[in-house]
Amino acid sequence: MPAIRSVLSHLVLILTAAAATAQPLPSWNDTPTKQAIVAFVERVTTPGAPDFVPPAERIAVFDNDGTLWAEQPMYFQLLFALDRVKALAPQHPEWKNQEPYASLLKGDVKTALAGGERAILEIVMATHAGMTTAEFEGIVTDWIATARHPVTQRRITEMVYQPMLELLAFLRAKGFKTFIVSGGGIEFMRPWAEAVYGIPPEQIVGSSIRTKFEMRGNGPALVRLPEIDFIDDQEGKPVGIHSHIGRRPVAAFGNSDGDLPMLQWTAGGQGARFALIVHHTDAAREWAYDRQSHIGRLDKALDEAGAKGWTVVDMKQDWKLIYPFQKK
Amino acid sequence: MPAIRSVLSHLVLILTAAAATAQPLPSWNDTPTKQAIVAFVERVTTPGAPDFVPPAERIAVFDNDGTLWAEQPMYFQLLFALDRVKALAPQHPEWKNQEPYASLLKGDVKTALAGGERAILEIVMATHAGMTTAEFEGIVTDWIATARHPVTQRRITEMVYQPMLELLAFLRAKGFKTFIVSGGGIEFMRPWAEAVYGIPPEQIVGSSIRTKFEMRGNGPALVRLPEIDFIDDQEGKPVGIHSHIGRRPVAAFGNSDGDLPMLQWTAGGQGARFALIVHHTDAAREWAYDRQSHIGRLDKALDEAGAKGWTVVDMKQDWKLIYPFQKK
Repeated sequence: MPAIRSVLSHLVLILTAAAATAQPLPSWNDTPTKQAIVAFVERVTTPGAPDFVPPAERIAVFDNDGTLWAEQPMYFQLLFALDRVKALAPQHPEWKNQEPYASLLKGDVKTALAGGERAILEIVMATHAGMTTAEFEGIVTDWIATARHPVTQRRITEMVYQPMLELLAFLRAKGFKTFIVSGGGIEFMRPWAEAVYGIPPEQIVGSSIRTKFEMRGNGPALVRLPEIDFIDDQEGKPVGIHSHIGRRPVAAFGNSDGDLPMLQWTAGGQGARFALIVHHTDAAREWAYDRQSHIGRLDKALDEAGAKGWTVVDMKQDWKLIYPFQKK
Repeated sequence: MPAIRSVLSHLVLILTAAAATAQPLPSWNDTPTKQAIVAFVERVTTPGAPDFVPPAERIAVFDNDGTLWAEQPMYFQLLFALDRVKALAPQHPEWKNQEPYASLLKGDVKTALAGGERAILEIVMATHAGMTTAEFEGIVTDWIATARHPVTQRRITEMVYQPMLELLAFLRAKGFKTFIVSGGGIEFMRPWAEAVYGIPPEQIVGSSIRTKFEMRGNGPALVRLPEIDFIDDQEGKPVGIHSHIGRRPVAAFGNSDGDLPMLQWTAGGQGARFALIVHHTDAAREWAYDRQSHIGRLDKALDEAGAKGWTVVDMKQDWKLIYPFQKK
C-alpha cells in the first residue's frame, strides 16, 4: 500500500519538523536577533493572525557568499577558478603573457583581480566555458569533494555557518520555500547545494554564462559559451528573483552591499517582511570586516539596516558557534 | 498543536492523492496512450524497480499553447496583445501609420503577423513593456478574468484540456514536480497558472523581456523594458529548462516542432524517460492541424516521434472529452 508508506514517511517528516521547531536555532544565543527571527516566523505562520502568509507565498531568499558560507580570504568560486586556470594552462600557452591569467599563474591574485567584482565574474566565466553542462557539473563535483580552504584547511563545504543551516531548516519546517540568490555562478552552486543546504537546483538563482543546445553524435548537449548571460548581483538580484521565482520574497538574508537591492525589494513589499544582514564581527572565530572590505563590503546596507530597523546579526554575540565542525 | 494539525492536513492530501491515483486519468480512453503514461509512471516511481527515479529528480515539463490549453485560432497571448494595442492606441497616435500596429488596429491580424513567430513575440513584448511588474500582473489578471475566446465565447481559462489537467494531478500525486516550459511570456502565465493548473510561479519558464530595478518615491519597483531578454522556444527550451530548473526532466509534453529540442533533451537523458506529443486530430471537438499549420506546426517532431517511439496523443481517439466544461 503506497498510501500507507506515504503516510508513515510524512509522519516522520512532520515529527522531525516538530522537533526542529520545538527548540529552534540551537546554535543561536538567546539575543534580540534570535528573538526577532522567531517572532517574525510566528507572526506570518500563525493561522488567523493579521500578518499570516499562506504557505505558497512563504518565499525566503538567501545570499550565499558571506551569508551561508564564508567568503574570506577570497570567494570560494575564485579558488575554484584559480585551480581551473592552473589545470587549463597547458592548453593555453598564450595565458603566460595575457592578463589576468599571467598574474594568476604567478600567484599574484591581487593584481589579477584589480578590476573589481565584475572583473572577477568575467574571469570566472571565462574559465568556466567551453564544455557541456554535464562536463562542468562533473568538474565542480570533483573539485568540491577534494579542495581545501587555504586558511583552515577544511573542506570547502565545511565552511558553512551552522546557525544559518539551522535557520534554513527552521524556515522550511515552518512551510517556507528557501532559495539561494547569489552573485556566484548558478552552475557552480547547483551540484552541491542540495546536499549541503537542502536547497534543490531549481531553487538556486545565480550569475550565469550563456548555453547553447546542440544535437551531437552521441545525443543532445548544452554547451557553455564564454559569454556572460546574467550578473545576479546588486540591482540584478531583484531581477533574478523576479525571473526565477516570480514572487516577491517575504524574507531576505544577506551580508553585503551587493544584497541591498534584494533586501530593499523584499522589505518594500506589503504586509509583514523580514530583512536580515549577517555582520562579520568575529575576528577570532571567523573574520571581522565591513565598510572597508574589498570582499563582502557592508557599508550602505549597514546604514540602511539601521535606518529601516532591519535585523543585523552580530556573529560574535549572536552565534554560539560558526561552523558545523565546532559542534560538541 | 500545530504538529497534529499538520498531520491531519497531510493525511487529507495523501488520501486525496491516493484517490487520484487509484483511478487515474478518468477523461482518457483506455488506449495504448493512457497505458503508456501509466506504465511509465509506475516504472519510475516503484521503489526498488530498476528504473526508479528519486522524488527530487521527478521533473516533468509541459509546453502550454496547444499542450495544456488551446492555441487556435491564434495564441491566446496574441488575443491579449491585440486588446492591449487597442487599449493603448489613444496614447500612440503614431501607430496608425506604423506596422504591425496599423494592420492590427484595422483588424488585419494576418498582415500584422506576416513576420512569423519571432515577429509575433516581438509584437507581444513591445505591447507588454513600460510599466512595473506589479502593474503588468494586474493588467493580465483583469484581462484573463473577462476575456472571451473568439470562437467558443468561453472564458480563456476554460479552454484548457481536462485530460491534461488530470495528467498534471496524476504526476504530482506520484511525486513529480510539474513545470510549464512555454514560448509564451513568463509574466503572462504566472498570474493565473497556479489557480488553473496548480503550477506555482516559480515553476513556470517562458519568454521574457528585460526588467530593471529602480528605487522610486513610493518604494522599490521592477520596470518592464521593451527589450527581449529570452525566447523560450525551439532550442531555447532546453536552455530555459537548464537555467530555471537545473535538472534534466524525466518527462516532457509538447505538441509542435517548437517543442522538439525540449523533447530531444528530455528523451536523450540516461535511464527511463518519457516524451509525449499532443496531436490535434479532432476537428469536431477542437481543431485538427499538424504539418501545414502556421500555428503549432507539428511536422519534424511527428516524424521524430515515430522514429524514436515517443507517445503521440490522438485527441480524437484518446480523449473522452476536451474541456472541463464538457464534464457531465
